Amino acid sequence: MIKTAGSVTAAKGFYAASCAAGIKYKNRTDMAMIYSDEPCEVAGTFTTNMVKAAPVLWDREVVYSGKKVQAVIVNSGIANAATGKEGLDICRQTADIAGAELGIDPDAVLIGSTGVIGMQIPIDRIKDGVVQLAKKKAATLEAGTEASKAIMTTDTVNKETAYQIELPAADGDGSVTVTIGGMSKGSGMIHPNMCTMLGYITTDAAIDKSLLQKATSEIVKDTFNMISVDGDTSTNDTLLVMANGKAGNACIAEEGAAYNTFFAALKQICEDLAIKMASDGEGATKLVTSKVLHMDTKENARILARSVIHSSLVKAMIFGKDANCGRVLCALGYAGPEFDPNTVTVTLKGEEKDVIFCENGVVLPFDEELALELLSKDAVTLVSDMHMGEEEATAWGCDLTYDYVKINGDYRT
Amino acid sequence: MIKTAGSVTAAKGFYAASCAAGIKYKNRTDMAMIYSDEPCEVAGTFTTNMVKAAPVLWDREVVYSGKKVQAVIVNSGIANAATGKEGLDICRQTADIAGAELGIDPDAVLIGSTGVIGMQIPIDRIKDGVVQLAKKKAATLEAGTEASKAIMTTDTVNKETAYQIELPAADGDGSVTVTIGGMSKGSGMIHPNMCTMLGYITTDAAIDKSLLQKATSEIVKDTFNMISVDGDTSTNDTLLVMANGKAGNACIAEEGAAYNTFFAALKQICEDLAIKMASDGEGATKLVTSKVLHMDTKENARILARSVIHSSLVKAMIFGKDANCGRVLCALGYAGPEFDPNTVTVTLKGEEKDVIFCENGVVLPFDEELALELLSKDAVTLVSDMHMGEEEATAWGCDLTYDYVKINGDYRT
Repeated sequence: MIKTAGSVTAAKGFYAASCAAGIKYKNRTDMAMIYSDEPCEVAGTFTTNMVKAAPVLWDREVVYSGKKVQAVIVNSGIANAATGKEGLDICRQTADIAGAELGIDPDAVLIGSTGVIGMQIPIDRIKDGVVQLAKKKAATLEAGTEASKAIMTTDTVNKETAYQIELPAADGDGSVTVTIGGMSKGSGMIHPNMCTMLGYITTDAAIDKSLLQKATSEIVKDTFNMISVDGDTSTNDTLLVMANGKAGNACIAEEGAAYNTFFAALKQICEDLAIKMASDGEGATKLVTSKVLHMDTKENARILARSVIHSSLVKAMIFGKDANCGRVLCALGYAGPEFDPNTVTVTLKGEEKDVIFCENGVVLPFDEELALELLSKDAVTLVSDMHMGEEEATAWGCDLTYDYVKINGDYRT
Repeated sequence: MIKTAGSVTAAKGFYAASCAAGIKYKNRTDMAMIYSDEPCEVAGTFTTNMVKAAPVLWDREVVYSGKKVQAVIVNSGIANAATGKEGLDICRQTADIAGAELGIDPDAVLIGSTGVIGMQIPIDRIKDGVVQLAKKKAATLEAGTEASKAIMTTDTVNKETAYQIELPAADGDGSVTVTIGGMSKGSGMIHPNMCTMLGYITTDAAIDKSLLQKATSEIVKDTFNMISVDGDTSTNDTLLVMANGKAGNACIAEEGAAYNTFFAALKQICEDLAIKMASDGEGATKLVTSKVLHMDTKENARILARSVIHSSLVKAMIFGKDANCGRVLCALGYAGPEFDPNTVTVTLKGEEKDVIFCENGVVLPFDEELALELLSKDAVTLVSDMHMGEEEATAWGCDLTYDYVKINGDYRT
């Protein structure tokens, strides 16, 4: 697996476009398109929130129908959630116009929205936007980058990543290069359950739909579902993975070496994007990584790791560079899984030397100067060793800052 | 039931004292004692955090032993959590010295601590403090008020309440006045599970221990367990209710009219203290009340009501007076219980006129001026009508402010 440039247009046959449709934001792009010149197998995971935005309901139907897809239309500014029948109708009309402009079946069009909940999207602006996007679409890396910028809301940086792997060729003659690339956006209402806010991944791999869905569903558990900015699971969480088969690899139709190679690259893409989202959480100044080691089950390890990065008190202490390590123990303790508090070791990781906060459940005197130095870095890693088994998990979050409060005290206006 | 003055010394036979023992804070009181001149039945509920502070382990043993108790010693500044065997030994020594000074069995002494996790309490200062407390104890209302101040940490106001009820007299001759009074402290790491941070309630009622425990356990579900400041369930949560029987009422030995009267008063005390804790949450400028109406089960109603006041995004929007009502719907949606999003009505309550944010799951245009006016008040009430059944629940929280981040970014130092 090697890192390569670009995002959703890195793989063969994928095009992207962006435009300023004036949905809600002024003076910036707010609509993006991804288009594949070949129909794609698609896998998706969606929010578990009972209140699902209209585009989530639309995409679920398309993905679960088993049909191939060819395009995604995304807007930022308005989430099209809590919008009732009118909201669903806007999805229908968006797909119709995109289908007409691109010359494809409207049911091959996926839709994504992100922004304020409870406002209706002006459909005329969407329609004008789709016409522009269809005309502007390009297979360049730059077009992908611009698309990743158009889907941002309070994000401060766009999020893209891409990798290449070698897989056996379809014609049996050696191997071919397969590319996977993706983009995503955060950065508030981030506590994904089944999937994250908006993430779009494209690949030119040939792979069965069922295996693509299996890989996607498994991978989100250890990537997007392991980040939290504010504990609020969005109404719009959507991850879509589209595979158009243009790389020319022998179609991945069963688990085995090729599937494993593809799985590892897709997981790396998801992990890259998830970490970018965590570190760009609203108001964040630091990426916080919480590792849990030696837990009894994988799921318990995940729950404990997430509890630490989810704790407002841990997040505020990291912002304040205050080594108030009892809060980490406390967050492990109320997470749910049973453990013996008398065997827990909590460590603040350093590049050369660690700070052991607590050993066997007892907080020890520690090197305050080194702790301050490590807490002053852009990335802070806390390791909780439960000494109970062989399972481990990692979660990613950010600090809780004045700017988080500022951003969310006045988001709508 | 009538409201009366005072707190833990309002009931007959109860004494209180406070002193500045210099445990960690300077220039303020930081130790409190409650003492009853008669042995008391005691009920208690404690944190469900796997990491339990030493005084929680101590109190659980005393309460579960079935023995009567006569005193509580509380310190603020250091929580005596994550302190291992040394921490438990400090409880033992504290009980020993209190028993000796008060002339009672050390096992009749309950202990409470609140403050920083992971520091050892200087036992010599505790011992000096206990000697002072035993000398100073008084049955005045003022002594109770001073005790409620000594247990504060980041609280900005002390929390006390008391009520009186009439119950049948023990001698069968009419009724007697029974008093119940309590004090508690918040105000961070507040997301009680089974009980709140520290709460102490005293009554001169005569009541069986098992009924006292039954009432206490039931009441916390709708009072202390329904508040949240930051979602962090503390290692030290403790609620103790002590009944010394000095009012002269016929001992409440079964459920019935007298039990119901006592239950209602105890519930009112717990609700008063819980609301005081929520409105004095760290950095809070407002009390936020979340009512859920017409839900299918009581527990589901509680979960939904809590989810709204627990959401960082709802809390930040209330601080910013931004009527971003989709966040309320979102918080209901990820709480867990199933519901039909198309039947939900969310209302911002006004004294004369309400603002209907959303009806049948769709956000409607609303009177922005009135919404701003209602969001500018010291208390904000959000009502979510699920239209699914007959159960309801209320939860209390506060807004998320710059000061919360400030307080918790630099608490230890």
